[in-house]
Amino acid sequence: MYTTDKERMTEKIKTFSKFGNLGNGGITRLSLSSHALEARAEFKRRVLELGMELETDDLANMYATLPGSEPGLKRIVMGSHMDSVRSGGNYDGIYGVLSSLEAVETIVKEKIPHRHPLTVMVWTNEEGARFEPAMMCSGIVLGKFEKEKMLAVIERDGVLTFGDALASSGFVGEEKNRINSNDYVCYFEPHIEQGPVLEEEGIEIGVVEGVVGMVNYDIILEGVSSHAGTTPQSYRKDALRAASWAIMELWDKLGKLESSLVFTTGQIQCKPNVHTIVPNYVKFTLDSRHKDMGVLAQVVDIIENLPKDVFGCKLSYEEHWGRKTIKFDNDMIGFIENSVNGLGYSNRKMYSGAGHDAQYVAEMIPAVMIFIPSKDGLSHTVVEHSTPEQTWHGANVLLNALLEADAKMD
Amino acid sequence: MYTTDKERMTEKIKTFSKFGNLGNGGITRLSLSSHALEARAEFKRRVLELGMELETDDLANMYATLPGSEPGLKRIVMGSHMDSVRSGGNYDGIYGVLSSLEAVETIVKEKIPHRHPLTVMVWTNEEGARFEPAMMCSGIVLGKFEKEKMLAVIERDGVLTFGDALASSGFVGEEKNRINSNDYVCYFEPHIEQGPVLEEEGIEIGVVEGVVGMVNYDIILEGVSSHAGTTPQSYRKDALRAASWAIMELWDKLGKLESSLVFTTGQIQCKPNVHTIVPNYVKFTLDSRHKDMGVLAQVVDIIENLPKDVFGCKLSYEEHWGRKTIKFDNDMIGFIENSVNGLGYSNRKMYSGAGHDAQYVAEMIPAVMIFIPSKDGLSHTVVEHSTPEQTWHGANVLLNALLEADAKMD
Repeated sequence: MYTTDKERMTEKIKTFSKFGNLGNGGITRLSLSSHALEARAEFKRRVLELGMELETDDLANMYATLPGSEPGLKRIVMGSHMDSVRSGGNYDGIYGVLSSLEAVETIVKEKIPHRHPLTVMVWTNEEGARFEPAMMCSGIVLGKFEKEKMLAVIERDGVLTFGDALASSGFVGEEKNRINSNDYVCYFEPHIEQGPVLEEEGIEIGVVEGVVGMVNYDIILEGVSSHAGTTPQSYRKDALRAASWAIMELWDKLGKLESSLVFTTGQIQCKPNVHTIVPNYVKFTLDSRHKDMGVLAQVVDIIENLPKDVFGCKLSYEEHWGRKTIKFDNDMIGFIENSVNGLGYSNRKMYSGAGHDAQYVAEMIPAVMIFIPSKDGLSHTVVEHSTPEQTWHGANVLLNALLEADAKMD
Repeated sequence: MYTTDKERMTEKIKTFSKFGNLGNGGITRLSLSSHALEARAEFKRRVLELGMELETDDLANMYATLPGSEPGLKRIVMGSHMDSVRSGGNYDGIYGVLSSLEAVETIVKEKIPHRHPLTVMVWTNEEGARFEPAMMCSGIVLGKFEKEKMLAVIERDGVLTFGDALASSGFVGEEKNRINSNDYVCYFEPHIEQGPVLEEEGIEIGVVEGVVGMVNYDIILEGVSSHAGTTPQSYRKDALRAASWAIMELWDKLGKLESSLVFTTGQIQCKPNVHTIVPNYVKFTLDSRHKDMGVLAQVVDIIENLPKDVFGCKLSYEEHWGRKTIKFDNDMIGFIENSVNGLGYSNRKMYSGAGHDAQYVAEMIPAVMIFIPSKDGLSHTVVEHSTPEQTWHGANVLLNALLEADAKMD
């Protein structure tokens, strides 16, 4: 088995953590921001130095390619994104790019033979923190979103459109350069787990079988606003009381389904939200995810069967969006397993609860993901952390897996 | 018994509803706004026309005085405020001013003899909707708030201070003109009920015995934020789940105390409030009011005995502010009762759940309030409504009550 260079992997993480550094351990590196462009420039400098050819497509997705030995073969591609959320960390996204770069750098430096061209890829705007939605550019490439609509999206807290930011980025290339099934044979995406399972179970590598399906609902309670001091309790139609009941009810009912089901009421809006007025309107979100779409159907059933009258308030719901479970390619999963087992790392199969660009790519070419542990299961925070050992192990798994793909795929 | 002029009372409500008219039945007439100054100008025009003398104090509180027949007697004062909340109605506050004006106008027009000078008063900034807190100027007069601090309060959604707005109002007078116990003998404040009790019980007049005591708490739940897709349910410390439980628990426990206790969880704040992130922080308010401070002590006891750990989240609380029950003067209550009974209106004694300038004045001179019904119990909304009959009845009650006070007080 081959291994990458642990020092070099650690240096990469450290160097890129400068771009958008908040001084508190974390970063804010919103898509196409000046800090994101600094990171792109550093990526470009490094891949050119390794003798790779850099192309970009019309969405500023970056593709750095090292030629293979056998003419006519499609490219093996690996990577992730470099943008972060506001007050994010130095692992989500960027780790997938840098571990891919480290794997290719090892191949270059150690002159490891490979048949296919090897491409390290950077997706534009995965987080959607500046320009909604998340996974915007993989979504455009896979026909999930219309490009024209996405170009018109206005940044949060600002005036520029995504199209404006693209135009001034200096990284826009041709549409024909987009990742596609004619030129690319398979896709690897290393990532941090963003959850506590690997750490809690003391496991080094997550072999990701797919991305779980999800449903997103808004649950709405409509009551009547009235004065906190003058309205007897029995006359009240309090939307926040009703929403609290609904949240408890959902925890109760959904909690009795499969233990691996996750569900979250993460956002709540209350009107008029004044301490002396009985709330007349509360909306909260329900996000639920599971690999078995049958279990998600039960979730929807529970939502649809919530009582329509809760303490005199009208309960309604709106489906916000959803996605089906994405199953990764079995051969690709096998390459990861062989690599992990060959390296002797403890591992488990698991589903990704979070969405990733890989889930869209998987509809086009065989794809798979590799997870490394997240300290305390945390991500999208400045304290997001994986150890040098963990980042190195992930890169080693990628290196051997891509070499097996290189040997076995055509 | 005397009666005021119903047509004239109705015209007053209608005319003043132009100042800040939203075109949907309601008004926005924030304190010292251009619309509030228009209303003040109209008030000034009317009182001068009635031969009253107009003074203002250093807080722009207005005092329009009709001389009495007996030299050396203190003034009987009556009134309320003319400012509204955002998207408020045409009754809260302004009704107290206009019914007082109608009572005095009746005395002038019908040459009803009276011994004391009669003062119609307009309080500045009762609502606190532009400059917090509510009842700011009666609070300053009664020493509840420091004037210098209040002058520095910055308007909501703007840049001006309360001091700036006062300075440019054209209504600032001398501090010596403030209502005080040397020059004023008693205070009447007619108001809409702002609650459903009178309407529901088919009663015409509420004889207000006092303003209920209240406690205001923030209840805080602190958990751990984590990813909605990647954190198994059993690992979660979800602050919104914990807050929902606490709200239901408070409804359960507080609901078992006195049936006349009111309590409201009107405001909720959730962090980070993103649908894909488990909330790590939720704060909600609890406002509770009752005339018996012993019952409020039980409320505090229930809050203090909430569990400190709710689903792994830390529960804490902060007392925001509170007030003791204010009992109005028994003689003044008697004048209102005699007036109502003499007029033959149905009535009941009741406490005010809302706060009013009268509660501060009551600490200085005998004070009382008169309530008329509110349609559907609603106030602080554009649909706030009392009928012409109801507004007229309230003015009649005031007229006869103040004449009895005039006859019996010195």
